[in-house]
Amino acid sequence: MKKICAVIGSRANYASIKSALISIKRNKKLKLKIIAMASSILEKYGNVSEIMIKDGLKPDFMTHSLIEGETPKTMAMSTGLGMIELPDLFERIKPDCVLTVGDRFETMSTVISASYMNLRIAHTMGGEVTGTIDESIRHAITKFSHIHFPSNIDSAKRIIKLGENKKHVHVVGCPRIDLVKEILKDKHPSFKNIFKTGVGKKIDIQKPFILMSQHPVTTEFGKEESNIIETLEAIKKTKLPTIVLWPNSDAGSNDISRGIRKWRENNSSENFYYFKNLNSRDYIQLMNLTKCLVGNSSSGIREGAYIGTPVINIGSRQESRLMAKNVLSVTSNRDKIYNAIIRQIKNGKYKSNSLYGNGTAGDQISRILSRPYPDIQKKITY
Amino acid sequence: MKKICAVIGSRANYASIKSALISIKRNKKLKLKIIAMASSILEKYGNVSEIMIKDGLKPDFMTHSLIEGETPKTMAMSTGLGMIELPDLFERIKPDCVLTVGDRFETMSTVISASYMNLRIAHTMGGEVTGTIDESIRHAITKFSHIHFPSNIDSAKRIIKLGENKKHVHVVGCPRIDLVKEILKDKHPSFKNIFKTGVGKKIDIQKPFILMSQHPVTTEFGKEESNIIETLEAIKKTKLPTIVLWPNSDAGSNDISRGIRKWRENNSSENFYYFKNLNSRDYIQLMNLTKCLVGNSSSGIREGAYIGTPVINIGSRQESRLMAKNVLSVTSNRDKIYNAIIRQIKNGKYKSNSLYGNGTAGDQISRILSRPYPDIQKKITY
Amino acid sequence: MKKICAVIGSRANYASIKSALISIKRNKKLKLKIIAMASSILEKYGNVSEIMIKDGLKPDFMTHSLIEGETPKTMAMSTGLGMIELPDLFERIKPDCVLTVGDRFETMSTVISASYMNLRIAHTMGGEVTGTIDESIRHAITKFSHIHFPSNIDSAKRIIKLGENKKHVHVVGCPRIDLVKEILKDKHPSFKNIFKTGVGKKIDIQKPFILMSQHPVTTEFGKEESNIIETLEAIKKTKLPTIVLWPNSDAGSNDISRGIRKWRENNSSENFYYFKNLNSRDYIQLMNLTKCLVGNSSSGIREGAYIGTPVINIGSRQESRLMAKNVLSVTSNRDKIYNAIIRQIKNGKYKSNSLYGNGTAGDQISRILSRPYPDIQKKITY
Amino acid sequence: MKKICAVIGSRANYASIKSALISIKRNKKLKLKIIAMASSILEKYGNVSEIMIKDGLKPDFMTHSLIEGETPKTMAMSTGLGMIELPDLFERIKPDCVLTVGDRFETMSTVISASYMNLRIAHTMGGEVTGTIDESIRHAITKFSHIHFPSNIDSAKRIIKLGENKKHVHVVGCPRIDLVKEILKDKHPSFKNIFKTGVGKKIDIQKPFILMSQHPVTTEFGKEESNIIETLEAIKKTKLPTIVLWPNSDAGSNDISRGIRKWRENNSSENFYYFKNLNSRDYIQLMNLTKCLVGNSSSGIREGAYIGTPVINIGSRQESRLMAKNVLSVTSNRDKIYNAIIRQIKNGKYKSNSLYGNGTAGDQISRILSRPYPDIQKKITY
Repeated sequence: MKKICAVIGSRANYASIKSALISIKRNKKLKLKIIAMASSILEKYGNVSEIMIKDGLKPDFMTHSLIEGETPKTMAMSTGLGMIELPDLFERIKPDCVLTVGDRFETMSTVISASYMNLRIAHTMGGEVTGTIDESIRHAITKFSHIHFPSNIDSAKRIIKLGENKKHVHVVGCPRIDLVKEILKDKHPSFKNIFKTGVGKKIDIQKPFILMSQHPVTTEFGKEESNIIETLEAIKKTKLPTIVLWPNSDAGSNDISRGIRKWRENNSSENFYYFKNLNSRDYIQLMNLTKCLVGNSSSGIREGAYIGTPVINIGSRQESRLMAKNVLSVTSNRDKIYNAIIRQIKNGKYKSNSLYGNGTAGDQISRILSRPYPDIQKKITY
Repeated sequence: MKKICAVIGSRANYASIKSALISIKRNKKLKLKIIAMASSILEKYGNVSEIMIKDGLKPDFMTHSLIEGETPKTMAMSTGLGMIELPDLFERIKPDCVLTVGDRFETMSTVISASYMNLRIAHTMGGEVTGTIDESIRHAITKFSHIHFPSNIDSAKRIIKLGENKKHVHVVGCPRIDLVKEILKDKHPSFKNIFKTGVGKKIDIQKPFILMSQHPVTTEFGKEESNIIETLEAIKKTKLPTIVLWPNSDAGSNDISRGIRKWRENNSSENFYYFKNLNSRDYIQLMNLTKCLVGNSSSGIREGAYIGTPVINIGSRQESRLMAKNVLSVTSNRDKIYNAIIRQIKNGKYKSNSLYGNGTAGDQISRILSRPYPDIQKKITY
Repeated sequence: MKKICAVIGSRANYASIKSALISIKRNKKLKLKIIAMASSILEKYGNVSEIMIKDGLKPDFMTHSLIEGETPKTMAMSTGLGMIELPDLFERIKPDCVLTVGDRFETMSTVISASYMNLRIAHTMGGEVTGTIDESIRHAITKFSHIHFPSNIDSAKRIIKLGENKKHVHVVGCPRIDLVKEILKDKHPSFKNIFKTGVGKKIDIQKPFILMSQHPVTTEFGKEESNIIETLEAIKKTKLPTIVLWPNSDAGSNDISRGIRKWRENNSSENFYYFKNLNSRDYIQLMNLTKCLVGNSSSGIREGAYIGTPVINIGSRQESRLMAKNVLSVTSNRDKIYNAIIRQIKNGKYKSNSLYGNGTAGDQISRILSRPYPDIQKKITY
Repeated sequence: MKKICAVIGSRANYASIKSALISIKRNKKLKLKIIAMASSILEKYGNVSEIMIKDGLKPDFMTHSLIEGETPKTMAMSTGLGMIELPDLFERIKPDCVLTVGDRFETMSTVISASYMNLRIAHTMGGEVTGTIDESIRHAITKFSHIHFPSNIDSAKRIIKLGENKKHVHVVGCPRIDLVKEILKDKHPSFKNIFKTGVGKKIDIQKPFILMSQHPVTTEFGKEESNIIETLEAIKKTKLPTIVLWPNSDAGSNDISRGIRKWRENNSSENFYYFKNLNSRDYIQLMNLTKCLVGNSSSGIREGAYIGTPVINIGSRQESRLMAKNVLSVTSNRDKIYNAIIRQIKNGKYKSNSLYGNGTAGDQISRILSRPYPDIQKKITY
């Protein structure tokens, strides 16, 4: 029986791996251990660890590793703090394989701790191309990882080009699509509890509305506050009721948060509702119903492709990511954003596209992790 | 004028970049700042920072980042501690480019701190292929770096294959060869001060002698003590006087140190002399004079090629590194090591080979660093 | 010339030492260096470092040391992080004396770093008796300190009883009173800029209003949210316009913040105004004008005594602190708080009392710090 | 049933609490959890955690917290690192009481972590008066502690004077004496295994010999190397065979170690034997047999009083400690040390003195820890 240790660092992290965690937990050849760290255990960022408990995926260990400040400097320091804390937990757990997700800054704590301690690393969502520092982080993680689970064929090719052994590169699709598939089985979702958290003016979900989710872009540090105003003003002009999601914890999220807070003070009469966190069920159903998802979240591109959500993708955050027809990309300018929204509303819902998976990624990851493993000592293929 | 910040983490690190530091310091378009960290400021590992002061390269900042233990776990934790300390120094220095060397574990502190803080990174000695965790570290650093200074053409090709822009990959040779060239200008070196440090029986340098330098191999953690005994016993059998160098600070160096200490207690009558540290001048001249360099130091392969030193390379540490004819590779077995030594002694000195540079690497690095820089935002080329 | 290094960890810290910093800066025998750390450099807690720059007291060093979470656990961890960062700064500064303030948790970072590095410590506000963990912290700091600046004669006696040499115990009064004296010279303060920050309904300062400032009590962790509701409900019942100050960064402040946030959502029509931070000038003038200061801030007891502010002191936070007649203490119960407020409003302003100083503390501290210092090696007097 | 968590930071720490740990483990009302940290888990300092396992006191948690350097700066930083690591372990263990020992620098990690997390603290060996920074540390720990176990009546009085409630101050004697009593029951100890570790010339324990144990003095940082030479030269002059114990981990221990190493190289023909660590059994029996214990270890004063060992106490390290007649104090001067040794050899063994306990401290501590506890909220008694 193999011990798999998954490290979760944020709300986005969790959504990206949840279906695999469930499959691993059910797999009799595997034993799952979960570490929750960084923003995933903080109320301020949605207290993901509470949600995990409700999902039957209680973290075995929780460790505070986020240093306050939300600047590039504290991002680096927090990653260092994680590397002081994780080695002790890995020593206690003694995993056969460490499972890590994506490309967020604190993921490097997991990857370096594990690899320096001679532990095998399995990595999801490698091989993609984006803007921001995530671009370097993602490829560096690939160079430390032993088993690769890219979400699409383009990414798999890129991982192999990076000198990884193709025997250990498995195109499984994105585990987020598994959740989407599951959730959309419910054709008549109830939204009656949704407005029990959050603040603002309640919205009638059955009527046309806009969904907004905008995260910081590390390399644009300093411009975040004005960028979010552009987005909010463009949406306001549509006069449609709007659901706003609070950003996650990166350098710059304070700026976005402040921008939203200030704008809201001056626009309290607008028909806007603000969430710190939404459970993924509600979020996906909202993506299924919204006239348009506006911002720079990767969910629009991945889940959006499968759902067929009309998406406005603003700025450089998702640059170079493989996109289906449902996505319209614009720069951070209120007029351009407004025009794009109008165009998407006219177009309406798109056809489902399996570019990022067909809903079986978690099961595939679990099955592959129960097979024999590659050597600890890696070697570039060329 | 551009500010270059070099981060030095160990004695080996310093020797690998010294000639570049000197050239940068002399370059009127550049301003050099030096941070010394990890083992480079500890007496136990040769107090490199003292040597730097003598060389006119006084560190501007020194920071303690090594957590005691010398296990894979403390190696990870120490890297984390470095990432808590370096961001503050980078913020103070505000470098235009951070210069980092090679592939030692603490180098990741430099690279992640710098890249998360949106600083440009220049990296020497990337693109090589070796055993141990250094293999993953080196390629990951390449994925974070903006300017690459490989030591040979094979490495340069590998960096470009890794998706780096070839415009920023410069084959400059290894800066250690610059030092070798400089040092070997002295045809009649004096060794009169050499035995003022170190312990054991003094050796007549003008007569045949063996030089030993064996470092830990991260992935062989636990076997280090028996490995070093194999080496020492093989050398003992040759009955030649021998100079032994103490290992550097990696997980496992305690095991090697203990092995050497114990062996020495039981073999105090042998004609062996033990150094904690040698200045590079003496070391190179010894490489020039020795009948055979035994161990697993990369110096045998790089400097050895240029000098023509007969080298026995033991075990997996230098696996896959480009080697000239002067190197004979064997596994860690006393008989095999002995036979290889005898063969090398019979062969004698080899012809000089410029595989790892011709002695101008430092000047080239300095010149390239004074030219316009690539964008901060990296993007894989495929 | 002696170098004094003051370490500031929070907004309250700064207000408590500002007049001394100004006097030290003016003193030709002294050179002032300032380190700002912990919550003092974070926008979330009022960005004190910005205020310091405006006051001509720009921090020489700023260091992030607050780990997110605001639980007792992160309070301990943050103190540890401060001790990893401060030693390097002390080594750089090489102070003749480190000046530290009061009894907040992060103050132990300063005190232990300085004393382990054989630096002299001067401590203000020692010898007082209060509730919470501050009680232990304060007396422990006394045992590490070389020069003591208690704010009143009772505290001085207690310090001497703790085994400190009375030659080095100087009753100087509280430096906050110096600021109060200075500020109250302005008899017709303008409040026109005050409502440019903060949110809520603006208030006419010239008419009766209530001022609220409630901080967490470490040992009551878990009850903070319900406690703040009691206070807010009691004030609401008075129907007076109210100014609410956001709490500072202790374990539990998230609970208070959440309590205030929630209450505010449900009571948005009330005549309440909310500040994240007030400059001390405005705060003191408000204390001078308010009908009643409600909460558990030490300002009510110290500055309040000098100003004559009617104060309601709720709960155990200020327990055992020396109080003048202006303070009415009650438990956290909405009826009791309401009745106490009514009683204070009836009584009106009190006479000024110099229990905590007469406005010359800063000058006295500066003068004493320029005299010869006690030995580094401390020894209990009995 | 109450959970007691003992934190061990060094070899000296362990010897000082071992008998209490054994009694607590046997006590059915108590559950013992042990954390080993700092130098206690490092081979370099005697690998105390291995000894604990042999003693049936296996640490439940081990955590690396020592930053290399052994300077005052790294002493402070290591204490900070301990405070980043311990809170997580305390959270996992949830002790009813944390048991801490003495006054070493890393003890502050335990005390601050525990008290900030609202945990009760029991402290042994408080109330004593010594030189070095330990003096401040010890009294500060008293101010954080809830239950006090001083080793003698003088210390108990001092703790009460420090404002502690006398109900919670229990004179139990020193737990080290418990071990001594137990060990000395063996009237004919075998020393046949003793020389299996260590290096140097073996000694006939049945004939007259000297025992040396000298530790660093924090406030004399920089003079350690010359001090140890004075001691070694004085002993050499007596021409008696000598057993030298390696120093423990404080700032300066590198200097002492280097001093010993260098002296030994030049005096390899002397009849000296060097131990990195001795189990306490052998050490006590050596104290019982030696003609004279030379150095500055507290064992000479405490255990020495009970055993009657003739002791030379050098320098300020034990200054002001209560001493029985068996101790002769001198400054660090080779002639004074030599003369004192001669005087002690003439005098011979002293009568046993129970100044530091009668051998029941561990049982008393265990019994008192199973009774009802004082409040978490401390308050000075005056």
